[in-house]
Amino acid sequence: MKATYLYGAGDVRVVDVPDPIVQESTDAVVRVVRACVCGSDLHPYHSMPEATDGRSMGHEFVGVVEAVGNDVSTVKPGDLVIAPFAWSDGTCDFCREGLQTSCRHGGFWNAGDVKGGQAEAVRVPLADGTLVAVPVEESSPLIPSLLTLSDVYGTGYHAAVKAEVSARTTVTVIGDGAVGLLAVLSAKRLGAEQIILMGRHLARTDLGREYGATDVVAERGDEGIARVRELTGGDGTHVVLEAVGHRPAYDQAVGVVRAGGVISRVGVPQYDDAPVGFPSLFGRNIMLTGGPAPARAYIETLLPDVLAGKVDPGKVFDQEVALDKVAEGYQAMDDRTALKVLVRP
Amino acid sequence: MKATYLYGAGDVRVVDVPDPIVQESTDAVVRVVRACVCGSDLHPYHSMPEATDGRSMGHEFVGVVEAVGNDVSTVKPGDLVIAPFAWSDGTCDFCREGLQTSCRHGGFWNAGDVKGGQAEAVRVPLADGTLVAVPVEESSPLIPSLLTLSDVYGTGYHAAVKAEVSARTTVTVIGDGAVGLLAVLSAKRLGAEQIILMGRHLARTDLGREYGATDVVAERGDEGIARVRELTGGDGTHVVLEAVGHRPAYDQAVGVVRAGGVISRVGVPQYDDAPVGFPSLFGRNIMLTGGPAPARAYIETLLPDVLAGKVDPGKVFDQEVALDKVAEGYQAMDDRTALKVLVRP
Repeated sequence: MKATYLYGAGDVRVVDVPDPIVQESTDAVVRVVRACVCGSDLHPYHSMPEATDGRSMGHEFVGVVEAVGNDVSTVKPGDLVIAPFAWSDGTCDFCREGLQTSCRHGGFWNAGDVKGGQAEAVRVPLADGTLVAVPVEESSPLIPSLLTLSDVYGTGYHAAVKAEVSARTTVTVIGDGAVGLLAVLSAKRLGAEQIILMGRHLARTDLGREYGATDVVAERGDEGIARVRELTGGDGTHVVLEAVGHRPAYDQAVGVVRAGGVISRVGVPQYDDAPVGFPSLFGRNIMLTGGPAPARAYIETLLPDVLAGKVDPGKVFDQEVALDKVAEGYQAMDDRTALKVLVRP
Repeated sequence: MKATYLYGAGDVRVVDVPDPIVQESTDAVVRVVRACVCGSDLHPYHSMPEATDGRSMGHEFVGVVEAVGNDVSTVKPGDLVIAPFAWSDGTCDFCREGLQTSCRHGGFWNAGDVKGGQAEAVRVPLADGTLVAVPVEESSPLIPSLLTLSDVYGTGYHAAVKAEVSARTTVTVIGDGAVGLLAVLSAKRLGAEQIILMGRHLARTDLGREYGATDVVAERGDEGIARVRELTGGDGTHVVLEAVGHRPAYDQAVGVVRAGGVISRVGVPQYDDAPVGFPSLFGRNIMLTGGPAPARAYIETLLPDVLAGKVDPGKVFDQEVALDKVAEGYQAMDDRTALKVLVRP
C-alpha cells in the first residue's frame, strides 16, 4: 500500500510499504477514508534532519475497519470509525479519568511499529479502547467534521474544558489555525458570551466569527494586548485559549488574561522556559493549564451535534489532495494558502 | 509608638513613629495584640539595599480596634480583629469572587502611607472589607492560632483549594515552613488520605505528621523525587503544594506530580523563568496554579474549627519576642532556630 513518509525537512514522499495486518489480538486494521495534515506535522517538516529510513506521518484519520483481532469486541469489519490522535486501552486509571494521552498501555501514531494515518491503511493497536464507530457511510458529507474529532475539534475543546469556560467567563482565543477556530466553537458550546479571536487571516477569522467569535483582534504584541484590554474594560479575559505554541503567543496570553484567570495551552510549545514568576503568573493568581488533548475522551460528547448537523467543524478543511499529492498539501499549509488539508487515499 | 523598620539587609530596628490615626472615614486604628515575622520578610532581610528612610515591616496581626471612621460599620472599638495580609474593600468584583489580593481599591501593608503590623498600632484602610471581628479576649490562648489566619494558614489553605484537594487526591507538600505545615493541615481538612511532606527539620516534620502528613521525605532533588514516586506506585501525587518559592522546589514539584495533576504554588517565586514546555508541564497535562492567598476569603471558613479548638495552627509559633527584640526574631528565623516567631508589642 501507499503511505506518507518524511525523509527530512521539506522531503515528503509517498512510498510503497507492506499492507498492515492484525498482529495482536487487540488490533484492528482500518482502511483510511480521509486523513489530513496537522499544523504539528509542520514542525518536523521544517526541522527534521535527513533520514534514510524516513518517518511515517499522519495522526488523524477516519476509516473503515477491514479486520480485527480475536479480542476486539466494540468494532467489526465494515464499521466506519474515528481514530483519535493517541491510541489507548480505555481501561486503565488514566483512561477512566479521561486522560487517554497518558494511557498506561497506549501510545502515539508513528512511534515504534505503529505507523501513521496519511496512508491507505493503518494497524490500530488496542482497537476497543481507541476507535469509535459511527453510523455514517463513507460517502457522507459529514466525513470532514467527523475527522476533526480525531484531533483539532477535541483539542480546541480540551483547551476550553480545562479552562472551565462557561457563561460566566470571557474568553480570548490566540491563533486562527484549525485548533484556534475550533477552540472558539468549543467556547461557544460551553456558553461563553464574549469570545475574542486573535488572528490576522481574514478568511479564517471570518470562519471564527461564524463559530462564535464576538470580536477579532488582528494586532499582535503590545498592541494586541492593549486592544483586548480595551474590549474588556481594561481587565483582560477570564480565560485565554492558546492555540499556537510559540513563545510570543505565551507572552500574549499573559498580557490579556484577567487576574485570577486561566491560560489554557493546546498549541504544542516550541519553547521550554517561560516566565512564571510574580509579574507574569503568580502575583495575579493566574492558572496555566492544558496539554495534548485526550481527543478520545471528547468524541462521544461532541459527536451528537456533528451527526445532527448542528455544528460544522469540518469547515476548517479548505483544500483536499489525493494521497499521491500529499506533499502539495504540506506545502499549501506551510505557505498558509490552506488552513487545513484533507488527504484522500 | 514603636514600629519595626528595615534599613537594609540584616538591619532591623524598632523606631519611634507618630501614632496612627483615622485618616479616611473607612479607616480603623488597631492596637496590635500579636504580630509575627513571615518567611517572606526574610527576602528583604537578605537583600534590601541600605535606605535612610527604612521600610516598615509586618503584614500579619491580631489586635483590638481603638478607633473607627464614620463609615465603618462591621467593627467597633474594643473588638478583637484579625487582619489579613492584604486590605480590600470587600465589595468589588474581585472581592466578591474571593480574590481580595486583586481588590480594585485594596493594597498591601507597607506600601504608600499604609504601614506594617510589627508595631504597636496600625491604621487599617477599608476596615469593613479587611477586618474580621472574633469573639475572643486578647488574653486567650487562641491568639496564635487566630494570627495564622492573617496569612500562613490561609496561604496553605489557598494552595490546597486552588489544587482542588479532596479525598480522591494524593498530595505532596514541598517545604516544612509554617505555610508548608499548614498546607498539610489544609489538605487533611479537605480530605486527602495520603499527604507526603518533603522537609528535613525533624521538629517541623513531626508537627507536619501531627497535622496529617502520612509520609515524610527528607531527601531532595532526584533522590527526593525517586522517594515520592516510590511511595506512589511510581506515579507521583495528583497534587503538589509548593510552599518554598525557590527554583529547586519548582523542579521538585514537576518531578513528583502525577500526569494530569496540579502544582499549586504559594511560596513567593524567587525566580522568573522556569520550564513549562513539553517535558515539564505540557506533555503530561500538568496544571500550574497558585499565587498570593486571598487570606480574607478563608477566615470565615477556617475560623470555626480554630475557635472550637479542633485544630491548632498556632503551633507553628515556637518562639515569642517582645517588639523591642524583634531583630532577634528575624535572626532566629533566618538561622532556622525558630520556625515562626510571635511578636508581642
